[in-house]
Amino acid sequence: MTETKAYAAQTPTTPLAPWTFERREVGPHDVQFDILFCGVCHSDLSQIKNEWFPGIFPMVPGHEIVGRVVKVGDHVKNFKVGDLAGTGCMVDSCQVCENCKQDLEQYCLEGNTGTYNSYERDGKTPTYGGYSKTIVVREEFVLHISDKLDLAAVAPLLCAGITTYSPLRHWKVGKGHKLAVLGLGGLGHMAVKFGVAFGAEVTVLSTSPKKEEDAKKLGAHHFVVTSDEAQVKAALGSFDFILDTVSADHDFNMYLSLLKTNGTMICVGVTLKPNEFSAFSLLGGRKSIAGSGIGGIAETQEMLDYCAENNIVSDIEMIDIKDIQSAYDRMVKGDVRYRFVIDLATL
Amino acid sequence: MTETKAYAAQTPTTPLAPWTFERREVGPHDVQFDILFCGVCHSDLSQIKNEWFPGIFPMVPGHEIVGRVVKVGDHVKNFKVGDLAGTGCMVDSCQVCENCKQDLEQYCLEGNTGTYNSYERDGKTPTYGGYSKTIVVREEFVLHISDKLDLAAVAPLLCAGITTYSPLRHWKVGKGHKLAVLGLGGLGHMAVKFGVAFGAEVTVLSTSPKKEEDAKKLGAHHFVVTSDEAQVKAALGSFDFILDTVSADHDFNMYLSLLKTNGTMICVGVTLKPNEFSAFSLLGGRKSIAGSGIGGIAETQEMLDYCAENNIVSDIEMIDIKDIQSAYDRMVKGDVRYRFVIDLATL
Repeated sequence: MTETKAYAAQTPTTPLAPWTFERREVGPHDVQFDILFCGVCHSDLSQIKNEWFPGIFPMVPGHEIVGRVVKVGDHVKNFKVGDLAGTGCMVDSCQVCENCKQDLEQYCLEGNTGTYNSYERDGKTPTYGGYSKTIVVREEFVLHISDKLDLAAVAPLLCAGITTYSPLRHWKVGKGHKLAVLGLGGLGHMAVKFGVAFGAEVTVLSTSPKKEEDAKKLGAHHFVVTSDEAQVKAALGSFDFILDTVSADHDFNMYLSLLKTNGTMICVGVTLKPNEFSAFSLLGGRKSIAGSGIGGIAETQEMLDYCAENNIVSDIEMIDIKDIQSAYDRMVKGDVRYRFVIDLATL
Repeated sequence: MTETKAYAAQTPTTPLAPWTFERREVGPHDVQFDILFCGVCHSDLSQIKNEWFPGIFPMVPGHEIVGRVVKVGDHVKNFKVGDLAGTGCMVDSCQVCENCKQDLEQYCLEGNTGTYNSYERDGKTPTYGGYSKTIVVREEFVLHISDKLDLAAVAPLLCAGITTYSPLRHWKVGKGHKLAVLGLGGLGHMAVKFGVAFGAEVTVLSTSPKKEEDAKKLGAHHFVVTSDEAQVKAALGSFDFILDTVSADHDFNMYLSLLKTNGTMICVGVTLKPNEFSAFSLLGGRKSIAGSGIGGIAETQEMLDYCAENNIVSDIEMIDIKDIQSAYDRMVKGDVRYRFVIDLATL
């Protein structure tokens, strides 16, 4: 067992604070890596606050984890001490169901094992995430990280990256498509980068006119202020896809009206209240609302390799772990470009 | 001009009653056919009652229309006097937009011209539907009807038929797929027939256990009573597609839970209140909610030809036009197997 420093929430209403727990012994199929950087995802805060479901406390958040391997089990084949390594939102799954066998562990029919706020396959040992010094993960759920990229800026690829990469690949978004990205936050800014890299004509939809300059810097071709009626009217029926990264309430009928016939609005943000749509909004143009959750392990590796080849990383602001609460406060206000990453050297 | 007997609603609150109006002269590209049978669609009642939008009154409903050609314009090439003919939900469209050019006149970007409760392309001449003795329609929107089938039972194919045929074809539903049909009414019973004909394994989902026998007679392989918790539990995650024909409020999250990973729920019924879904219901399995509206003219002809080859018609109850109000009353209660068809000889 490895005594491990971390930051944890002891209850849904107490601030994150230093805590120590034990990581399991490295088993024959396990990789242990010391965490160098961990991204801060909006879902970290949602889960601490029990917004999704009653959480498992103490809770050590963090699922955008990169670091360096310090120990490997006897049967581990693909990692050795000193390698860079990463882990995203899952650390295990049943590995035998129909979905797992198709590299869709995120949709494991038994339920995947979340990196934190979840239980190991035994159903009783809690998992603890990346706001900590070291982690032990079974080999199949550890990703290879290229040393070509800024390691801190790679961390958010493990959630914000794959969550946007996967649906764009699944729906084969690329050249000849008009893609709108709804919301320019952690997920949205990655969606812009991937959409542009895949050859789509990318428009950022945002309520905030002041994001236009940034959107263009990220590579977006167009920008629509969705609170401006004239701009919305001009964009009616113009997109093949909308990648919806917004977790606040929003007006689905308005966004559906911006889709072309046969267009698809792909939701990757977790809205807490039920979403509403009118039947006519879909029937009037054979439109779809779809959802997509992170990505499988093989696809996550593919995404990381693609990013290394194409020099794609997240735009980040590095923070000390002691400043996590103020980072949350800023994140809630949308005041981050575009992902906070914790430097675990500060723990 | 042709003086034409009809049944019309003079206002949203008055019962249908005899009315006389004039059909236009047959133009060079027009076909006039005397109406022999007209199906009764739930949307007839919705439109009379202004449930969709403020209607155009007097309103002559009816968009499942079959009859025999009595006059053709000089330039008409594909119809001659004495031919069987049919018209569905549209009588015109711009014919030049991107969608019309792809045989998707139902999604005409200028808006198609509805068979009734709509205006001709001039934007001011009201259209009147099939609860009448004769109709004049431009050739491109007139369908050929085979004399192999029972003509009265063909009428509902023009709306209930194409509305279910089109999405099943678009999403390539067939052999190897598990298809659930939600609701066993006018649309649902056609969805079962087409689903079975296309080779899918078909399950009818219904709140009403007493429909099981009928569902099986129509060819359905399975039946799930959706008010029975155990039956719902057994069906979780089991369907590739749900074709949702229900226009009453219903619980989307429950139905989405019955879909497999990557499954699609296709809505063809018009619900009046907004529909609600939870983000997790889609994200948890890369699921989609889609909508589909009727079908294009070429596809409607394809569907009619397919029905003639495969001996598929609607199950109908014939009524005299004077009994339309009591037919509506029964339709609202779901007491019809499965489509009322008006015998226009009774007008």
